[in-house]
Amino acid sequence: MSQKPLILISNDDGITAPGLRVLVEEMSAIGEVIVVAPDKPQSAMGHAITVTVPLRLTPNKIFGDIKAFECSGTPADCVKLALDKVCDRRPDIMVSGINHGPNYSINVIYSGTMSAAVEAAVDGVQAIGFSLCDYSNDADFSHCRKYVRQIASKILEHPLPYGTLLNVNMPKSDTIKGVRVCRQASAKYAENFDERQDPSGRTYYWMTGKFINLEADDNDTDLWAIDNGYVSVVPTKFDLTSNGVIQHLKQLMHE
Amino acid sequence: MSQKPLILISNDDGITAPGLRVLVEEMSAIGEVIVVAPDKPQSAMGHAITVTVPLRLTPNKIFGDIKAFECSGTPADCVKLALDKVCDRRPDIMVSGINHGPNYSINVIYSGTMSAAVEAAVDGVQAIGFSLCDYSNDADFSHCRKYVRQIASKILEHPLPYGTLLNVNMPKSDTIKGVRVCRQASAKYAENFDERQDPSGRTYYWMTGKFINLEADDNDTDLWAIDNGYVSVVPTKFDLTSNGVIQHLKQLMHE
Repeated sequence: MSQKPLILISNDDGITAPGLRVLVEEMSAIGEVIVVAPDKPQSAMGHAITVTVPLRLTPNKIFGDIKAFECSGTPADCVKLALDKVCDRRPDIMVSGINHGPNYSINVIYSGTMSAAVEAAVDGVQAIGFSLCDYSNDADFSHCRKYVRQIASKILEHPLPYGTLLNVNMPKSDTIKGVRVCRQASAKYAENFDERQDPSGRTYYWMTGKFINLEADDNDTDLWAIDNGYVSVVPTKFDLTSNGVIQHLKQLMHE
Repeated sequence: MSQKPLILISNDDGITAPGLRVLVEEMSAIGEVIVVAPDKPQSAMGHAITVTVPLRLTPNKIFGDIKAFECSGTPADCVKLALDKVCDRRPDIMVSGINHGPNYSINVIYSGTMSAAVEAAVDGVQAIGFSLCDYSNDADFSHCRKYVRQIASKILEHPLPYGTLLNVNMPKSDTIKGVRVCRQASAKYAENFDERQDPSGRTYYWMTGKFINLEADDNDTDLWAIDNGYVSVVPTKFDLTSNGVIQHLKQLMHE
């Protein structure tokens, strides 16, 4: 490449999140970086976009000389705005994260981190969502650096086909055994809303739930990889068609 | 069935939306209905869930004797709360909509209507999202009634395998040619944010964009079905693994 690759970065924890800074530092070593990140935390926003209010984009000097903006919208909004209004050429890759908390298995559908990456991928930009399986705000990301740089470099060199992006999760423990390419584990949350009374006697509910791995015996899933000390890499798509059911449904609908 | 089937209904346009009423009326003819719907419009919320504030659930008499609640959360929140706190037995099916506006093709990833249905499906409940390809609030749903009832009845009789739900879109025109089982068309939005100045001279952006069908020549997609006067039925899944890329990625990551 004659020109340094252009790397667009966003996240869902907001522009001040430590995980974003790690991405900015690592990506600056391999390319020219542009950051467009939410001005406040946007966890569990799924693939929300903002259609009823206008969006703001404000330059931010948090990363020194690196071009960075905070955006009033969701992670998906950040990427849409970045591609249309901030980047003066197409990014070679978009990376999202590093999220504070796992986005493996069914968490992928709730994830703002992944929605930013999906948004880039739909537009035809190579994209990776990175997450650390540690919810704490003072989480240590140092053992992630090597893998972030390695995986992003591989995708820059060998782009994925249109329609696929990567969902990368990294274990909390710093003794990582390696990288496992795997599939999304089937899992769900067993909801158990916590019911309380407010001071005026009205009921309200806090969402709580237990995460249930429906495939605990399988060793080819992202959950297995994380539980066993590996970085999980799941090729992820946004064509949600359940192709295996089409023939069955055709018969059923035309009976 | 000795007992009438239990049918859970939600949407993303809010409890007062005309499309929801059509679902309630049609489903009441084939089962016992429970409604838990957002207390305000929640379009384009994707699969957002509410984790930082508590949720409220308020009984609403809008549908007369039918058990109905408005919820302060997102469509996905509504379904989670309904399954945990409102339904005293497992619903036999969950239907979402009828959305004012299409959820075909890539719209599925932004859709609050579909996120409610996905939420039910993840929990193992049969689920269908219904949308009318007409954005107007006074849209005429009368030609949809027959298809809503027919498709829901078929799924009640012949449940889908775990991991699959239906994304059903209906044309605006009332001269429907029939039902097509099809796949999600590949499409994207070409963003073109409208840049304006507020009265104090600060820039803001309105999201606008042009929808681009990347597979205009193919006749097995949901976009083709709608454009040609058919109801589109896409079997949809929430396992986002791009299985076809796993072998390639394994080689790449271990090079």
